[in-house]
Amino acid sequence: MGHYSIGIDFGTQEARAMLVGMDGSCVRSADFSYPHGVMSECLPDGTRLGAGFALQHPQDYIEALDFLMADLFRNDPKLAEQVIGIGIDFTQCTMMPVDEEGIPLCFREELKNEPYAYVKLWKHHGAQQQARRLTETARKRKETFLAYCGGEIYAETMFPKMLETFERAPKVYRRADRFIELADWIPFWLTGSKKRSKSIAGCAALWNPSTGYPSKACLEETAAGFGTAAEKLAGELADVGTPVGYLTQKRAAQYGLPAGIPVAAGLGDCQAAFVGAGLSEEGILLSVMGTSSCDMLVDRRRIGLPGLYGVSADSMIPGMYGYEAGQATMGDLLGWFVNNQVPESYTQKAKEAGMSVFDYLNGLAEAIKPWENGLLALDWWNGNRSVLLDTDLSGMVLGMRMDTRCENIYRALSEALAFGKRRIVEQFETYGIKVKKMYATGGVASKNTFLMQVFSDIMGIPVWISEAENGSCTGSAVYGAVAAGAGAGGYDGLKEAAEAMGGHISRVYMPEERYRQHYDALYKEYKTLYQYFGRENQIMKRLKRQAERGDGD
Amino acid sequence: MGHYSIGIDFGTQEARAMLVGMDGSCVRSADFSYPHGVMSECLPDGTRLGAGFALQHPQDYIEALDFLMADLFRNDPKLAEQVIGIGIDFTQCTMMPVDEEGIPLCFREELKNEPYAYVKLWKHHGAQQQARRLTETARKRKETFLAYCGGEIYAETMFPKMLETFERAPKVYRRADRFIELADWIPFWLTGSKKRSKSIAGCAALWNPSTGYPSKACLEETAAGFGTAAEKLAGELADVGTPVGYLTQKRAAQYGLPAGIPVAAGLGDCQAAFVGAGLSEEGILLSVMGTSSCDMLVDRRRIGLPGLYGVSADSMIPGMYGYEAGQATMGDLLGWFVNNQVPESYTQKAKEAGMSVFDYLNGLAEAIKPWENGLLALDWWNGNRSVLLDTDLSGMVLGMRMDTRCENIYRALSEALAFGKRRIVEQFETYGIKVKKMYATGGVASKNTFLMQVFSDIMGIPVWISEAENGSCTGSAVYGAVAAGAGAGGYDGLKEAAEAMGGHISRVYMPEERYRQHYDALYKEYKTLYQYFGRENQIMKRLKRQAERGDGD
Repeated sequence: MGHYSIGIDFGTQEARAMLVGMDGSCVRSADFSYPHGVMSECLPDGTRLGAGFALQHPQDYIEALDFLMADLFRNDPKLAEQVIGIGIDFTQCTMMPVDEEGIPLCFREELKNEPYAYVKLWKHHGAQQQARRLTETARKRKETFLAYCGGEIYAETMFPKMLETFERAPKVYRRADRFIELADWIPFWLTGSKKRSKSIAGCAALWNPSTGYPSKACLEETAAGFGTAAEKLAGELADVGTPVGYLTQKRAAQYGLPAGIPVAAGLGDCQAAFVGAGLSEEGILLSVMGTSSCDMLVDRRRIGLPGLYGVSADSMIPGMYGYEAGQATMGDLLGWFVNNQVPESYTQKAKEAGMSVFDYLNGLAEAIKPWENGLLALDWWNGNRSVLLDTDLSGMVLGMRMDTRCENIYRALSEALAFGKRRIVEQFETYGIKVKKMYATGGVASKNTFLMQVFSDIMGIPVWISEAENGSCTGSAVYGAVAAGAGAGGYDGLKEAAEAMGGHISRVYMPEERYRQHYDALYKEYKTLYQYFGRENQIMKRLKRQAERGDGD
Repeated sequence: MGHYSIGIDFGTQEARAMLVGMDGSCVRSADFSYPHGVMSECLPDGTRLGAGFALQHPQDYIEALDFLMADLFRNDPKLAEQVIGIGIDFTQCTMMPVDEEGIPLCFREELKNEPYAYVKLWKHHGAQQQARRLTETARKRKETFLAYCGGEIYAETMFPKMLETFERAPKVYRRADRFIELADWIPFWLTGSKKRSKSIAGCAALWNPSTGYPSKACLEETAAGFGTAAEKLAGELADVGTPVGYLTQKRAAQYGLPAGIPVAAGLGDCQAAFVGAGLSEEGILLSVMGTSSCDMLVDRRRIGLPGLYGVSADSMIPGMYGYEAGQATMGDLLGWFVNNQVPESYTQKAKEAGMSVFDYLNGLAEAIKPWENGLLALDWWNGNRSVLLDTDLSGMVLGMRMDTRCENIYRALSEALAFGKRRIVEQFETYGIKVKKMYATGGVASKNTFLMQVFSDIMGIPVWISEAENGSCTGSAVYGAVAAGAGAGGYDGLKEAAEAMGGHISRVYMPEERYRQHYDALYKEYKTLYQYFGRENQIMKRLKRQAERGDGD
């Protein structure tokens, strides 16, 4: 009789659960799509939402848990008895206000039509100006926590989102006993424990081991009355790979699981993917490549890295600082291109050849010698998430001539994604963190062989493709197993579990030596434009603000 | 019984003739497509051509004349007796080497497989480096003719093309008695006269009334042995609207026309279009908008205008300096977009609506408020013809975000074309030539109502659409009539004929006052990028050269 750990990954549109053996074998998996999906137009009762809103309904997560637990053991209820622990990860920072009992405020009749009582999804974009003001105040006060968030407070994180609610819906803010990340709330729902995850606090709520949450003075200076905000984050902090609590009798009965099994401290989905890829060492960048891309790295040293939005103690591996960076587009940029810029003649030819448009374009782009392409792009269709940390930037392509074809632009966009990643690695290396190789995981990494070769060529390092049915889910299962005391404790225990249970390497891309000189030269050009449009000429911001203002002034 | 003038326009792919009455009525027209078209891959015998070659076969022009003259009078031979004059225009600078008898060298058996013995079409791109060297020498020597060509010798003009032949095919160069523009050769073919057109010499061969052709010393300094090149342009110069000669008995009999009727001095097709649009006054810019766009203006003063490639005495109107500028893309940029960047869903919807893709996109782009578009482009897909005079520049688009749609980019390209034109007008005005309004003619001007409104809005001046069945052809007929002594002589005669015979105004676009502030601001942004990519950051040139070199170094 084996032991199993359950990993549950709460994504943007759906949740997935996996039942993972101590050898990494995934014996069952289940998926559940959120009935309400992402609410960006209106609430369930029809209340209209403003531009930039992206809300979710917490009832969906409860239904997800009910369904996933039932589905995992539908054909073999006895397996449930062998579960030793549960790990959870969630998109980050996805948060909501709850009452004294931990119940979401939007469940209350009187707040059903109040948008701010619901879950703000990670990509809810309502707190840009709040983030700007928090950053300004913190800079003026020379707050040390700035060193942990790349020198800039990102609009998608906890405090800007709380401040938005404080200012836009003071009634909701006052009524909220706590604001909580869903990666903490799901464990609460399972265990009743109000402990939070140290990883979550560090990655998304400006917490750090020396000074804790931002000071009352700093918050109050940003907005009068907001000084006590950190009190709404009350809760003891637990390390990753340790239990925040134990499955209650009620939930155990409901799901058919053993009561009292540990539920590990939650993580962001990207953080969970690190051990999910089998990683625990320094010097390897893990890039999770989906619609956007998250880049993680661990190092024993704490180094202030401007422009990288997360440096958090123990966020993935105990005893190591976790560094987090990212590109705001990846698969979705190529998807945008395929949906918006590929002519009928190409889609028809792909169809005739029985290929996807992606595979067809990849074939054409691959046949072009890098130096023949003649184009250069900036990949900022969603803004720049690292090193410039600026959501108001936008994309650029140059070099088009009358003989430029669709596949040339597609190649330029693919190269731009790789240049963007190289720029992130350069930032790490400038501050003393050497990146020896990159692990890539996620749908784009598995499927887009052309893109992965371009990444290796442009970055000049090997790219290892780590395959896991779902890297975050696998990682959560690893944390669940470690919380249950499988193997040794601390770093060694996590390293051992990650290696045993994490993803396997399906392919390694090595950089083409003959392209090096060309790409080094082109990267220099890229950096010049990066600096010009990122810092010197603010045209992209001006165009965006004008479009948003929606008038001619 | 009326009087008629024949105008013949030799275009890139075909020739057109019109029989025009003194009131401007076009009573007959005929078209002929060149059997050899544009030869860019190989000669008729299979001899391969290098990159950038664009040749034509002069036999095609002879066949064109035979066909057109027969076709004009096929149904009414008596009309031919009422023809009083002939005018000719040709794409510029389209040139070839001829022998002592004026016969094209490529007609000789021993030179049939020699590319340089054929006609170099205007867009033959083999003389870039020759143009650069000529410019350098002229600058070093402070040659006054530089003031007539925008300070830079354009690679498509006569001397660079001659120098290319001198260096690449010395045998052909030595064998050539003369090099001749086809706008001079067609009149020679009809009349036997070796006179050339002053307009042609001024516009395409660096000739000016004070110093003539470039000096022997300047040419010799550029390339040893090239000093006597101007001798190969021998021939007295005739003013526009005056005869270079009279139709020979032989051609008269062949075409059924009266012998001895005058054939007017030839012009470039753009120059001919000026009177063809009914224009003869100062202060009005005529823009001929086809695949690319040619901009013409006349002024009594000679003003050195850097960056505009033509300032020629009497080139269109006797007693006036003709100023010529242009944009290297116009209709072909939008055509490129439609062929390369419009997805199947759009082409399908256009089809369902029974519309052309252009009309469909115009409708969508028109519905976007200018300030909502959020994009900015540089229209240099074919390089920049004025003010930067740089064929190595390329296109750029910025501002793309995930919600950018095809029609946003289409609008940005349309706006870029208008900003490019505004920059040309600004150059005129900076040097003291006020542009009160623009006349636009050609296919794009007639058909693309969205684009014309954008031009008016962005330039802030009225745009008058001048319709003529073919503006150049009509203009040539005007010159033919004037050469035949119809009406008064000199400026007054030409003005009178232009007004009587030139195109009529079909529509006037007035600038939208409410868009002015927005477009003024956006033009400022455009100029910053214009300066940056045009002068400060040479990335576009570097990318192009690398692609052309075709290796990784």
